Amino acid sequence: MTKKVLLFLSQGFEAYEASAFTDVVGWSREVGFNAVDLITTGLRPEYTCYWNLIVKPEISFDQIKVEDFDALAIPGGAPVAGFLEDVYDERFQNLIREFDKQNKIIASICVGALPIGKSGVLANRKATTWDLNNGKRRKELADFGVTVLDKRLVIDKNIITSTGPATSLDVAFTLLEMLTNIENVNEVKKNMRFNLD
Amino acid sequence: MTKKVLLFLSQGFEAYEASAFTDVVGWSREVGFNAVDLITTGLRPEYTCYWNLIVKPEISFDQIKVEDFDALAIPGGAPVAGFLEDVYDERFQNLIREFDKQNKIIASICVGALPIGKSGVLANRKATTWDLNNGKRRKELADFGVTVLDKRLVIDKNIITSTGPATSLDVAFTLLEMLTNIENVNEVKKNMRFNLD
Repeated sequence: MTKKVLLFLSQGFEAYEASAFTDVVGWSREVGFNAVDLITTGLRPEYTCYWNLIVKPEISFDQIKVEDFDALAIPGGAPVAGFLEDVYDERFQNLIREFDKQNKIIASICVGALPIGKSGVLANRKATTWDLNNGKRRKELADFGVTVLDKRLVIDKNIITSTGPATSLDVAFTLLEMLTNIENVNEVKKNMRFNLD
Repeated sequence: MTKKVLLFLSQGFEAYEASAFTDVVGWSREVGFNAVDLITTGLRPEYTCYWNLIVKPEISFDQIKVEDFDALAIPGGAPVAGFLEDVYDERFQNLIREFDKQNKIIASICVGALPIGKSGVLANRKATTWDLNNGKRRKELADFGVTVLDKRLVIDKNIITSTGPATSLDVAFTLLEMLTNIENVNEVKKNMRFNLD
């Protein structure tokens, strides 16, 4: 059965991070050996990215059934642009808890790790997040009881966290590999014209 | 005076390619030594990306004054999703001609090179585009009188063209460097957590 990813949009999200998920997963449907579906949702009818793009989600949040999905993708965004309001909302916090409870993958980029930390599912587990600005975001993540590692990308069982926008493709390809296999990832990379490792 | 980029959205555009422009240029305003502005436009009130994102442009096409901008950014997209309809429209074709006539930068990713070729401004000049699928897109570009090179990224004076989605960041950072300087690019890269060269 085709695997399916739920991508959560939040006010002030970073388009580059969200689109690493949509496009890597999208290319799997165009050229991959194993197609993966993805759908976008959010708590609002429309979002303003931190930079320029004005985006509408495909389905409303109350239509979501966790059992329909294999993974949850959380791009980061700018707290000054309202990012934390949406991701700290109790409705989304409960969704994170339900994905983790059912051992589904949760893949985040940059400060997309913070809502996972706040939900409690990372307590006494390993993760990472944005490191600059005197480690402000890492301290917040640690305050949620998380063991914060100084790494580009951390995988703790079903949960992927990462340091910054530069890790977006790494996270998206890691997610695709966890949902399918490395041959599928390499075929997508080849078609997107990435040099294969 | 602050430099300004016009980003053209087209039906079926690739969000990953467009957001490389919005986010690299956006980060220059957040952390760079030289902030660059960017605004999105297009011929339609709303666009469906090749994958998932539904996007609204910030200003309508008829509000554009070429003299307000220093560069035109053209992300690629999927011809099967309607990409060529918008970029081959005579209104946009004329805009490309005007940017080139005024020696302003035109930066494209992947098949974003095709409308530049069709406009005629690349006749007897060097460029590149998507190479897979038996070189179909490269043949189309050559049919516009363009000297097509088998390179990841080609710069011919004011015009940047590239091979595929994987080159998105290279094109965006090259554009930022041409508009400002390498120190500014390196500061943005550091903050996005890319390893500096």
